[in-house]
Amino acid sequence: MTRNPSTVADQPAAVFAHRHLLGIEGLTPPEIVALLDLAEEAVDVSRQVEKKKSVLRGRTQINLFFEASTRTQSSFELAGKRLGADVMNMSVGSSSVKKGETLIDTAMTLNAMNPDILVVRHHAAGAVHLLAQKVGCSVINAGDGAHEHPTQALLDALTIRRHKGSFNELIVAICGDILHSRVARSNILLLNALGARVRCIGPSTLLPKALDRLGVEIFTDMKAGLADADIVMMLRLQRERMDGSFVPSVREYFHFFGLDQEKLDYAKPDALVMHPGPMNRGVEIDSAVADGAQSLIREQVEMGVAVRMAVLEALASHLPNQPSFA
Amino acid sequence: MTRNPSTVADQPAAVFAHRHLLGIEGLTPPEIVALLDLAEEAVDVSRQVEKKKSVLRGRTQINLFFEASTRTQSSFELAGKRLGADVMNMSVGSSSVKKGETLIDTAMTLNAMNPDILVVRHHAAGAVHLLAQKVGCSVINAGDGAHEHPTQALLDALTIRRHKGSFNELIVAICGDILHSRVARSNILLLNALGARVRCIGPSTLLPKALDRLGVEIFTDMKAGLADADIVMMLRLQRERMDGSFVPSVREYFHFFGLDQEKLDYAKPDALVMHPGPMNRGVEIDSAVADGAQSLIREQVEMGVAVRMAVLEALASHLPNQPSFA
Amino acid sequence: MTRNPSTVADQPAAVFAHRHLLGIEGLTPPEIVALLDLAEEAVDVSRQVEKKKSVLRGRTQINLFFEASTRTQSSFELAGKRLGADVMNMSVGSSSVKKGETLIDTAMTLNAMNPDILVVRHHAAGAVHLLAQKVGCSVINAGDGAHEHPTQALLDALTIRRHKGSFNELIVAICGDILHSRVARSNILLLNALGARVRCIGPSTLLPKALDRLGVEIFTDMKAGLADADIVMMLRLQRERMDGSFVPSVREYFHFFGLDQEKLDYAKPDALVMHPGPMNRGVEIDSAVADGAQSLIREQVEMGVAVRMAVLEALASHLPNQPSFA
Repeated sequence: MTRNPSTVADQPAAVFAHRHLLGIEGLTPPEIVALLDLAEEAVDVSRQVEKKKSVLRGRTQINLFFEASTRTQSSFELAGKRLGADVMNMSVGSSSVKKGETLIDTAMTLNAMNPDILVVRHHAAGAVHLLAQKVGCSVINAGDGAHEHPTQALLDALTIRRHKGSFNELIVAICGDILHSRVARSNILLLNALGARVRCIGPSTLLPKALDRLGVEIFTDMKAGLADADIVMMLRLQRERMDGSFVPSVREYFHFFGLDQEKLDYAKPDALVMHPGPMNRGVEIDSAVADGAQSLIREQVEMGVAVRMAVLEALASHLPNQPSFA
Repeated sequence: MTRNPSTVADQPAAVFAHRHLLGIEGLTPPEIVALLDLAEEAVDVSRQVEKKKSVLRGRTQINLFFEASTRTQSSFELAGKRLGADVMNMSVGSSSVKKGETLIDTAMTLNAMNPDILVVRHHAAGAVHLLAQKVGCSVINAGDGAHEHPTQALLDALTIRRHKGSFNELIVAICGDILHSRVARSNILLLNALGARVRCIGPSTLLPKALDRLGVEIFTDMKAGLADADIVMMLRLQRERMDGSFVPSVREYFHFFGLDQEKLDYAKPDALVMHPGPMNRGVEIDSAVADGAQSLIREQVEMGVAVRMAVLEALASHLPNQPSFA
Repeated sequence: MTRNPSTVADQPAAVFAHRHLLGIEGLTPPEIVALLDLAEEAVDVSRQVEKKKSVLRGRTQINLFFEASTRTQSSFELAGKRLGADVMNMSVGSSSVKKGETLIDTAMTLNAMNPDILVVRHHAAGAVHLLAQKVGCSVINAGDGAHEHPTQALLDALTIRRHKGSFNELIVAICGDILHSRVARSNILLLNALGARVRCIGPSTLLPKALDRLGVEIFTDMKAGLADADIVMMLRLQRERMDGSFVPSVREYFHFFGLDQEKLDYAKPDALVMHPGPMNRGVEIDSAVADGAQSLIREQVEMGVAVRMAVLEALASHLPNQPSFA
């Protein structure tokens, strides 16, 4: 039973012609829009009683996670299963990496099992690019160090587009630990590409020096940075930053940079709040705001599954299977 | 390919009309019997070469286990897969709960991924009820603290019914750590509802004071409690109870309350022995009895898969999928 | 929807008539060849775009791993899924074994869930045989202590046959820690059965005394042992052997027994290099050789999936499902 490739997802194949998704960098605006359009269809699939397509039937997807992650790994797992793929999870805790095997040996071993798609998260920036050069299958970057997390940026964009319609002249304020955040980096690249105006707000210790080269406005004061913002995108503060070297104390951080209703009121009245999760309630965001009427945080999770379905489908639709030893 | 809901499992839909299964408390005898009848069909499915139905095709089942459990989680996983669901396991060890996310945030995040059914085990009594109020999908309690474990009681009932036919006037002796046991609690509620006479036997330190209000007879002596019993249901003694505060020593506990053939002979000649597992051989039960001709312990495990299939099917058959953000 | 058993995999059913695969010991040469032939078909399946057969549709496969293993468990998981089975992983870390349950109780519990096939890895030699006597389903030994690892030997044989055509008079040198290696043991049995000439090379501390009874030639010098070899099969040196009792130091081990190009040049010019993985680069094998033109190491991994598909299919094709409590 072979499928006619020309009938599978014609539209994305026409526009999105990459073998891997390693970052937002390198994607054109039409490619990004094609993925968002495809994701809209996936939203409908996941809301049906029978939430199932068969475009990945017989395909093998391996989720290779060197860092734990509830929502990203789950989201990819459900996305693959809803498209009919055989999905296998490989997390570092239960793997031979403990026995001293290198990243590349692990990847090459999995690659030899003829997967179609490897979804990889790794703590080192650039590790996923390196891996993609070695394997014969498609690779999706599910987060590499402080470098990129492209599917997070795509799901954020999808969520924004569903509420604001267009990105043109939209003011998006990204707040918190910009320095260590792959989420910030991928979002800046994507939002710039689609015409939004991006601001970064945070303590100077958490703002990278190279930020101005990315074409964003920089603020160290929430009041100024949030003024007239359409979207307020909060970042997770990693616990290891709260030891005094980057942030004096959790209490002081929340006072200056934690999002509560008072600070949110500086933004536009119809401003919407986002957070990639998992949240530190009372650290970077107040519970009342996180659960409030302006919050899109739960919807982001739903869009996460949809965007990952779209990326999987787009990659699979024009990747002929390459036997490893042909 | 859409299914006509009216053709799916008409009978349980007619009798079992709950969105969640949180406990035996609140179920009527006809509802319990409907689940047992449906489980009988599931026993047949699991004994076929092709042990597969498609009633959950395209549905998403997430097993969210905050406590490890071989048999309960495996049983739910196989049950879902045999009904055609996409099943995803989420255990606390590999999840964001480690990052400090709350129970409710974890549940809401998973809920946003449009699951149909969440199977939840948690160490705190009441946690699963709380969670069920927050999410849009069906929730199955797979054990919450010392509160309830409804599918265990249902599988025990199914096992008993297959051997004894009816519950009427059946004498069931539940023995051991009643105080901390959700298994005991759910079984007492179910067996009472179906007309059995329940006895509880254990050291006074492990018998809750509120027990008499549940309509059971209480014994601190195995000989008296087992007299004329039809069913002897042993409970697992948790290791943390063996430190002297509840039980003087393992040796003394076994002497007084461990089930060996000598004690079992006080029960009816055709009495049957049950245990929810995993067993502490030589602590609450002697190996000769556990593996003997009167033991139903392995059959309980088989019935576990069948009962979980029945519960999944009953819940899915009349739960229209509610989009989280419709 | 029932399948006609007589139409399923007629050929292996005719030749391979075992309920379990516990070791290479006890298999006849025609049985081994039948499995290799079936594996060749599986190679083709895994190289298709839609890498899927339905011979195990509705069957339940449980992978019960008491020792962690990336490649073996993954390989069995993908093999089962590509054949349409419902596959469940059970690793010891997240199971009731922690609660003190015995190996046999764990196996009997899983058996009661009506699996068709249990794939078992255990640290104790003989554990898998013991378990196979207790359960009603098929059991595949995925490695038991230093005893056997039959699917590894089969995948090695398949890899060799694809390159050398025949085993007759082929000189295969197995090098390293023969003493503790189930891989060596299974390979010696299989290669002897198919007519190859097997040599074992290693320090005398790592050569078992019983080796000569297995009909192999023994060498403690790589130069002598590799002379005219067609296949050089390196073994993994376990870290716990490197503490001085078996091996003086990693550096000295590599000097005498690590495979580099200089030592490899003692073998035939068209000699091929194998390693079961995961490799200790710089300990038992040099990176240049591991990644070089003579290396079959990646292909072994691909053949691993194919061989496991063949074994699963062969066992399933003539095992009528036996209800545990019929």
